[in-house]
Amino acid sequence: MSFSLTILGSSSALPTSKRFLTAHLVNHDERFFLIDCGEGTQMQLKRFNKKIARINHIFISHLHGDHVFGLFGLLSTFSMMGRKSTLHIYSNPKLEEILNSHFSYFNETIQYPIDFHHFSSKLSEPIYNDGKLEIITIPLKHRIPCAGFLFKELPKPLNIRKEKIDFYDLGIKDIISIKNGADFVTPEGKTIENNKLTEQHTPSKSFAFCTDTKAINSNIQLIKNVDLLYHEATFLDSDTKLAKATYHTTTKQAAQLAKDAEVKQLVIGHFSARYKNYSLFQSEANSIFQNTILAEDGLEINI
Amino acid sequence: MSFSLTILGSSSALPTSKRFLTAHLVNHDERFFLIDCGEGTQMQLKRFNKKIARINHIFISHLHGDHVFGLFGLLSTFSMMGRKSTLHIYSNPKLEEILNSHFSYFNETIQYPIDFHHFSSKLSEPIYNDGKLEIITIPLKHRIPCAGFLFKELPKPLNIRKEKIDFYDLGIKDIISIKNGADFVTPEGKTIENNKLTEQHTPSKSFAFCTDTKAINSNIQLIKNVDLLYHEATFLDSDTKLAKATYHTTTKQAAQLAKDAEVKQLVIGHFSARYKNYSLFQSEANSIFQNTILAEDGLEINI
Repeated sequence: MSFSLTILGSSSALPTSKRFLTAHLVNHDERFFLIDCGEGTQMQLKRFNKKIARINHIFISHLHGDHVFGLFGLLSTFSMMGRKSTLHIYSNPKLEEILNSHFSYFNETIQYPIDFHHFSSKLSEPIYNDGKLEIITIPLKHRIPCAGFLFKELPKPLNIRKEKIDFYDLGIKDIISIKNGADFVTPEGKTIENNKLTEQHTPSKSFAFCTDTKAINSNIQLIKNVDLLYHEATFLDSDTKLAKATYHTTTKQAAQLAKDAEVKQLVIGHFSARYKNYSLFQSEANSIFQNTILAEDGLEINI
Repeated sequence: MSFSLTILGSSSALPTSKRFLTAHLVNHDERFFLIDCGEGTQMQLKRFNKKIARINHIFISHLHGDHVFGLFGLLSTFSMMGRKSTLHIYSNPKLEEILNSHFSYFNETIQYPIDFHHFSSKLSEPIYNDGKLEIITIPLKHRIPCAGFLFKELPKPLNIRKEKIDFYDLGIKDIISIKNGADFVTPEGKTIENNKLTEQHTPSKSFAFCTDTKAINSNIQLIKNVDLLYHEATFLDSDTKLAKATYHTTTKQAAQLAKDAEVKQLVIGHFSARYKNYSLFQSEANSIFQNTILAEDGLEINI
């Protein structure tokens, strides 16, 4: 089952000639989830050969322009492409007001239903569940209300080994029970353990997305052991004061969080456009957490 | 004196992997004028090494998203770059309302003065004059109010040949008079013709920008003999009905207009994303007007 993250934009605030503004595409089992939508997101989706029309769910962390301004064009493009299916947008309630105001000026464009799903950013809450994947918010600390998102694959039902169905002459009721993890008791009263009857599945994977935020520890339990953590690292260690003042995170702070939360892999991004040399981001993060990669526009990471 | 047009985006409505949305940069004597501002304009300015901070005047033809949605990000970027100088925006009055509504939601961003200059699109009117360059609107016919822009270099004052100042012992009053085109009468009553006293200047150049519009003849006198005409050619000749229905122009119609107006050079752009092969745009236009070039993102044309 596919589960991947594609970086569409890895710059913060100001774009550079190589890095667009924040946007990410998650592919889970060929369903496509967009996280944030900075200006130029639709161009990046084209550039990296992603099928725009297959995006049905958009998650917006917070209402700063570099995470939102691509929505106006993307929603308009959906309409021009003849979209009929419902688009789901998950965000702070204010985004609905902003988009409705926007549509009132540019009302030629939207001809498909939009379902807004509001969240508050103050507490972690479930916002999506399709039986295979659950998405819950991660409260962050930025200058305005902001939330990250935790993508968790739900426990997969067990598969029964086919030969055991015949061997023990299992009925439908038995099968359902075993798939849900129960042992089987034969008519003779002998207990057959579940793991003798079922096949091992690949474990459920998880991905946490945290930007924009100052360095905080309050989410460590929430992101504990995730397979991939995307965390902002807007600033280098030498700009720790600036990071604090602007409610952003440094390389070392992001790496320390990854270490404390014992995540399997860290990807840092949302780099300030002030820096010319990105190798320092790598070395500073690696000094604390070895399994760190740097976001680059177009980079695709299997989770 | 520099006078050039750079194409920043040559696709209409929907971007393609190679063509961004409508935006153009005019450089006149190292002053920079932006015409239209589709999504991603600030990225294209970076990509083509244009100095964003030197843009002081933005002209918006009409309020369709593919000509406007890049403004939100660009105005925000100006602010983050520490802009203090006034930005002048020339447009339909409604844009001021739209931007003010937008700023009320994203009010962290704008810290420099914006002067809005409204025009109506119904009649041609002068909207800019700095003594060297005049810009006047060109009424177009689109689904909503829309105007093109005529950039006209003003007649340059004549230069007096230095040796003539000594020879005729010219005073300041004489010099001003001769620079403005007058002949000189010697104390002996002999008339010296102006062209004997002055140097020939390069002629004043002109550039007309027309998009979006259906094919109309009513502007022919206005754009007569311009050195460069940018005209939309959204559709190929085979889609003439569609062009009419959507208030757009075909290749052949744009070329016919260039021919009728006896312009020196035509550049066509704003191509519909439905076409894969652009050579037909070239051949159809050339069949009527030979000196036609196709817009491409990044193309710079000296006027």
